[in-house]
Amino acid sequence: MAKKSPLAPAGFPDIPAVPGVRIASASCGLRYKGRKDVFLAALVKGTQVAGVFTQSKTAAAPVHWCRKQAGRGRARALIVNAGNANAFTGLAGEKSLQRTVDKVASVLDVPKNQVFVASTGVIGETLPDGKIAKSLTGLKKSLSPDSWTDAASAIMTTDTFPKGAWRRVKIGETEVTIGGIAKGSGMIAPDMATMLSFVFTDAKIPAGVLQTITARAAERSFNSITVDSDTSTSDTVLVFATGTAKHAEISRPGDAKLRAFRAALEEVMTDLAHLIVRDGEGATKFVTINVTGAKSANAAKKVGLAIANSPLVKTAIAGEDANWGRIVMAVGKSGEEADRDRLSIGIGGIAVADKGMVVKGYKEAPVARHMKGDEIDIDIDLKIGTGAATVWTCDLTHGYISINADYRS
Amino acid sequence: MAKKSPLAPAGFPDIPAVPGVRIASASCGLRYKGRKDVFLAALVKGTQVAGVFTQSKTAAAPVHWCRKQAGRGRARALIVNAGNANAFTGLAGEKSLQRTVDKVASVLDVPKNQVFVASTGVIGETLPDGKIAKSLTGLKKSLSPDSWTDAASAIMTTDTFPKGAWRRVKIGETEVTIGGIAKGSGMIAPDMATMLSFVFTDAKIPAGVLQTITARAAERSFNSITVDSDTSTSDTVLVFATGTAKHAEISRPGDAKLRAFRAALEEVMTDLAHLIVRDGEGATKFVTINVTGAKSANAAKKVGLAIANSPLVKTAIAGEDANWGRIVMAVGKSGEEADRDRLSIGIGGIAVADKGMVVKGYKEAPVARHMKGDEIDIDIDLKIGTGAATVWTCDLTHGYISINADYRS
Repeated sequence: MAKKSPLAPAGFPDIPAVPGVRIASASCGLRYKGRKDVFLAALVKGTQVAGVFTQSKTAAAPVHWCRKQAGRGRARALIVNAGNANAFTGLAGEKSLQRTVDKVASVLDVPKNQVFVASTGVIGETLPDGKIAKSLTGLKKSLSPDSWTDAASAIMTTDTFPKGAWRRVKIGETEVTIGGIAKGSGMIAPDMATMLSFVFTDAKIPAGVLQTITARAAERSFNSITVDSDTSTSDTVLVFATGTAKHAEISRPGDAKLRAFRAALEEVMTDLAHLIVRDGEGATKFVTINVTGAKSANAAKKVGLAIANSPLVKTAIAGEDANWGRIVMAVGKSGEEADRDRLSIGIGGIAVADKGMVVKGYKEAPVARHMKGDEIDIDIDLKIGTGAATVWTCDLTHGYISINADYRS
Repeated sequence: MAKKSPLAPAGFPDIPAVPGVRIASASCGLRYKGRKDVFLAALVKGTQVAGVFTQSKTAAAPVHWCRKQAGRGRARALIVNAGNANAFTGLAGEKSLQRTVDKVASVLDVPKNQVFVASTGVIGETLPDGKIAKSLTGLKKSLSPDSWTDAASAIMTTDTFPKGAWRRVKIGETEVTIGGIAKGSGMIAPDMATMLSFVFTDAKIPAGVLQTITARAAERSFNSITVDSDTSTSDTVLVFATGTAKHAEISRPGDAKLRAFRAALEEVMTDLAHLIVRDGEGATKFVTINVTGAKSANAAKKVGLAIANSPLVKTAIAGEDANWGRIVMAVGKSGEEADRDRLSIGIGGIAVADKGMVVKGYKEAPVARHMKGDEIDIDIDLKIGTGAATVWTCDLTHGYISINADYRS
């Protein structure tokens, strides 16, 4: 495994058990030696599910399956393997997926269309699903309420650390738990696809409501990060709500009783999204880009992503250069409405450019100090509207090139 | 100056004089020492002009000026400086531009609105236009029909070699010349903006017709290349037709007499575009991506650019890895219609993947040999329509990071 990212957190959080969820992980030898590579979650009857998936037009077989079943809203099991993405394997991939679904359904005695599957790893190689099948009886036996570190570790590919987050929050007077894990470090490393995240809660939320609040939280978390602008063929976020908590009924996404839960779900997903950026390939800086004054929130996000995806901005940050000219360039290429002569830019909370030119009496020293840190803040005010958004990214370094170009040498 | 790109051509072409065009270049000391940095072209009365400009929403002052004047279709002069882009300098930038226009108009005794201006170099610093003004009398004196190498060299910023191309072609029975120069090496290097190209011909073509054929040729040349996906705030292509050639009248873009000229203009612009890619920052491979079978030509181009702009595809090429999984990923992220299970991919003319999976009996050795060369060919057949397009790019290497991130150290 590669050296741990310099932006990694101190340790893995102490995620508590989530009532209604039992998990297990094991080593089935798909690709890696001496580590776990398969993760199983068994969910109580009645568990509701919501999903957000890659927009890729060439998505992998498990994505098609999960998208379809998530639409039905019920889940009893999740099986995830690392080492092989089961992507671009044609009909063989569909068959392999189906065999895995059948086997999990049979071992756990649950309906096939409530079995969710995710695969991450090499692309274009047939998945040896027999190895997963063989591990299922053992996995079932070792199901337990909490072994989240193992679970988060089992789904890693080129990740340099396991990723988890959790919150406890009340719905009415009842406390519920939200716990989640994720993997991803850039879209991909040598042949490795996929950002995956699985979030579990004991809240009792109907699938339709869960889908609405999950989609919104994903938009502001996983869909607001970028490492290298590339889009995986397997990106999958699934949120499972077991419904074992005894709170009052929730019938609509806007229910006031759900306010704290909605915020906590977004926090968990945002924490996980940040961890993926912190594990970005070759990353040495965690970059927060706040865009305000745009025509709409959507326009603000597009401007933010144009900056976050610009190789020139990202290399400037790697070079610890407060290069606001490149930021203006990236705003311009976003295609969103902007007025060169109104635009203001701040770096590390210090005004750098205003009205299309450098601020009067601009002193580079404090900005240069900020650029030397490993948390970089960029603020853009377009001054043409009230739309705002925040996106997160990392810098583009020699490390990224080494990971993605030099691996054959 | 940086070491010459390994993809540079053997030498600068022997561009002949273009009747009606006189050119000169000089050193006015804007930023560089010991080299020319300003280029002047004087055009005979009646010269027609067409232009294609950056789509950036934060375009620089000279772009706004040229776009406006190109719409009028008449040109008598072009002044270009390297070293300062006159971008993001607010009102000062507009005033500086205007002073330069006034001075050129006065020295050459031509109408102000027929003076075209382009500036390339650092962003955000006021242009010391007085230095350009001072050089104008000398420039006027040294105007001559051919000194293209000097001209192409004078407009360079981080380019590692001067760029020129030309063709001779007949309109009816009359031979005309097309000669052009360009600069650019990636969008930008440390603070350097801009892709610029200026093409001159003695053909007699009305501005409206010239605009139509220029826009089409630009679409298939300059707008079909990418180095790092970033978009300059100053990109400018201008085509000047002096009209001194004595061929039959041309009144519409589709005129059969223009067929060879249209093709030759596109060839000149494509040659220049390729030279820019060959000078891409850190480039070690020249990559041609042919997309066929798309829903439309526009869709084919979007798929091609998604591949050409993918950091993962570009690093794989740098690593000499025939990583077709990353190519499929990039097709998927283009947003254009694609069917994973129809898609075929060839590399170096060898079938690699078909119907969403690796071809039967795929042998990596011949493909690996192709990847070791410095001209890489990728063919994508989407098999859903008849749209086709070709785009060109270069690989993404440690050299790119060094140029764009390490320059402060």
